[in-house]
Amino acid sequence: MQNFTFQNGTEIVFGKGVEEKTGEKVKEFSDRTLFLYGQGSIKKYGIYEGVVSSLEDSGIETVELGGVQPNPRLGLVKKGIDLCESNDLDFILAVGGGSVIDTAKAIAIGVPYEGDVWDFYESDKTVEKALPVGTVLTIPAAGSESSSGSVITKEEGGYKRDVGSEKIRPKFAIMNPEFTYTLPDFQTAAGAADIMSHVMERYFTNEPDVDFTDRLSEATLKTIVENTPKAIEHPESYGPRSQIMWASTVAHNDLLGTGREEDWASHKIEHELSGMFDVTHGAGLAITFPAWMKYNYQKNVERFAQFAVRVWNVDPDFFSLEETALQGIHELEEFYKSIGLPTRLEDLEEEISEEEMKEMAAKCTEDGPVGNFVELNETDVLKIYKLAQ
Amino acid sequence: MQNFTFQNGTEIVFGKGVEEKTGEKVKEFSDRTLFLYGQGSIKKYGIYEGVVSSLEDSGIETVELGGVQPNPRLGLVKKGIDLCESNDLDFILAVGGGSVIDTAKAIAIGVPYEGDVWDFYESDKTVEKALPVGTVLTIPAAGSESSSGSVITKEEGGYKRDVGSEKIRPKFAIMNPEFTYTLPDFQTAAGAADIMSHVMERYFTNEPDVDFTDRLSEATLKTIVENTPKAIEHPESYGPRSQIMWASTVAHNDLLGTGREEDWASHKIEHELSGMFDVTHGAGLAITFPAWMKYNYQKNVERFAQFAVRVWNVDPDFFSLEETALQGIHELEEFYKSIGLPTRLEDLEEEISEEEMKEMAAKCTEDGPVGNFVELNETDVLKIYKLAQ
Repeated sequence: MQNFTFQNGTEIVFGKGVEEKTGEKVKEFSDRTLFLYGQGSIKKYGIYEGVVSSLEDSGIETVELGGVQPNPRLGLVKKGIDLCESNDLDFILAVGGGSVIDTAKAIAIGVPYEGDVWDFYESDKTVEKALPVGTVLTIPAAGSESSSGSVITKEEGGYKRDVGSEKIRPKFAIMNPEFTYTLPDFQTAAGAADIMSHVMERYFTNEPDVDFTDRLSEATLKTIVENTPKAIEHPESYGPRSQIMWASTVAHNDLLGTGREEDWASHKIEHELSGMFDVTHGAGLAITFPAWMKYNYQKNVERFAQFAVRVWNVDPDFFSLEETALQGIHELEEFYKSIGLPTRLEDLEEEISEEEMKEMAAKCTEDGPVGNFVELNETDVLKIYKLAQ
Repeated sequence: MQNFTFQNGTEIVFGKGVEEKTGEKVKEFSDRTLFLYGQGSIKKYGIYEGVVSSLEDSGIETVELGGVQPNPRLGLVKKGIDLCESNDLDFILAVGGGSVIDTAKAIAIGVPYEGDVWDFYESDKTVEKALPVGTVLTIPAAGSESSSGSVITKEEGGYKRDVGSEKIRPKFAIMNPEFTYTLPDFQTAAGAADIMSHVMERYFTNEPDVDFTDRLSEATLKTIVENTPKAIEHPESYGPRSQIMWASTVAHNDLLGTGREEDWASHKIEHELSGMFDVTHGAGLAITFPAWMKYNYQKNVERFAQFAVRVWNVDPDFFSLEETALQGIHELEEFYKSIGLPTRLEDLEEEISEEEMKEMAAKCTEDGPVGNFVELNETDVLKIYKLAQ
């Protein structure tokens, strides 16, 4: 087990009707906030009204900015920065899923910074200051509501890059599982793959003596595997929806990575895909993660066998742990298929050429090899894209 | 699943050599601290030197107070309050286990309060102000290093009472698993029972739709069950010691109780025991918890069957979940015995008379019934003490 520090002070306000507390929570930090949201589904499903009336009750002045897209774009971030500056706003309230929250974080960094906010995404530049961010979560997937990270796509060149800093960890996350009742099945499924990937990026490590976080991770994975099909079958069921929503936060609040070397190659391999082709991030992960596994499981067959047995209830074959390991990967793929996700590049609408794969592999590794479980160079990444065909 | 709020901002600094950061961490809050410790084992095993030199390096002025006993006493709390007042100290550094940390928290409440600090323990009086507390943990058991609670015993009458407030949640917890290498086996075992009890007090609930926290709880329990015998057999093994230490914190940092109605009757029943007879708290719990289970399992046989199967690998008897449930309780008792803990009152050194049991049952319920899984009145509690004979 590696040395670690862990601190996550995001206040989680969870349950039915908690959106009524939005105004009161914002008020702890500011009277003037940017109200950021996505494609308008919050207006269709009544979430908007609840949040607005709570903000009004607390006397919070708001300036609205809608239109955040999946794989959120730098352009809207800059618009948000301008709005904050011209209206003297000093808080960012994100109402939506990971894309909205990541955009909020980017705006929060950009406002007090004199240069181009993209500087933080394309380099290791340290975030010194950021406005406080609060969230009302509507899609359990990205875990951004209590994480220290933000992922933004620069339109020019399709670069999808991330930044991490304690300064952008949200102050609070307001989470009403009922808000997820109206999610399309595909989005529920893609969310599940995103959540599971956050756990698996940490799970696949060569670090010894990590039993506790192994078991917590397996617990989280099983929760998603059991509850996602239920949520898809009965979208308005509080039980499964609440399990998924809370698990999505814990999956990415840093707890499950404590003491471990994390991997994150599958995410980087996916980021090229959704950066260039605008694939839903979770769906992209359902393609890249199993391919990454097939390419790398032999590095630590025992760990993959443990994954198969403990998460997927595979009967272990002690005479061939390799068989057991492969069965676990197969179960993961079958699960993704069963909830309607693509698991191969050919399942996507857009056809991806050999040339494009080469371009993605080159961009993915342009800062050097990716991953820690196994370090992958450009050739490895290209082979993984090919395995995913 | 119930609505909940969850926030735990304690900074965990975990691993080998982390005591070197003590001074730097204290410095974030103060230049003048009370240095509180227990019976002097920290001096025997070199922990003291590491902490002192780190405090010196950061230029922190300290006033020392040693002598905290297990089941910590109000008398020493008052001595600490006086020392802080007369030396103008505005930070409390607790170096030790739960007793030292709970004492630190009591002092932290007492310094800015004009009345008797016991007021907070014997009533529901709200803590308005407290000095900041930091900890260097040496015994994984109580979970006090990141919890909002403190338990103190008033010598007169042997009352053991608690207080809970966000104001006393420690700012940081410095946790080096190597510090636990020298723990006597009995203390390692009693710590395990304490940790497991913190999980089980939350696990045994009638709240539906709590799969996620069920699974996280089972993960934590399995970690303790697997690693405690290893730590006892090989005291200087970093793997098991680190798993136990981190699990002890997570067991009581509020995560595992999110969305659940918690019970806490077994703790209250035990508090009377260790309040009157000075039994080690964890050892007392190894006696009261199985007895509580035997008295109450029929309220929710399914949950006890799940506990048996998932934590203890009991083969479920679907034709008699009751058998399965009882087997789980039996496994817990056998585990406690296997690590050298008492599981019956008769295993204790002091003999406890019928009259004394009656007195404990009366004191335990003097503010009304205890517990939530099943509400227990004085008669019930007496029956549980008798079941524990």
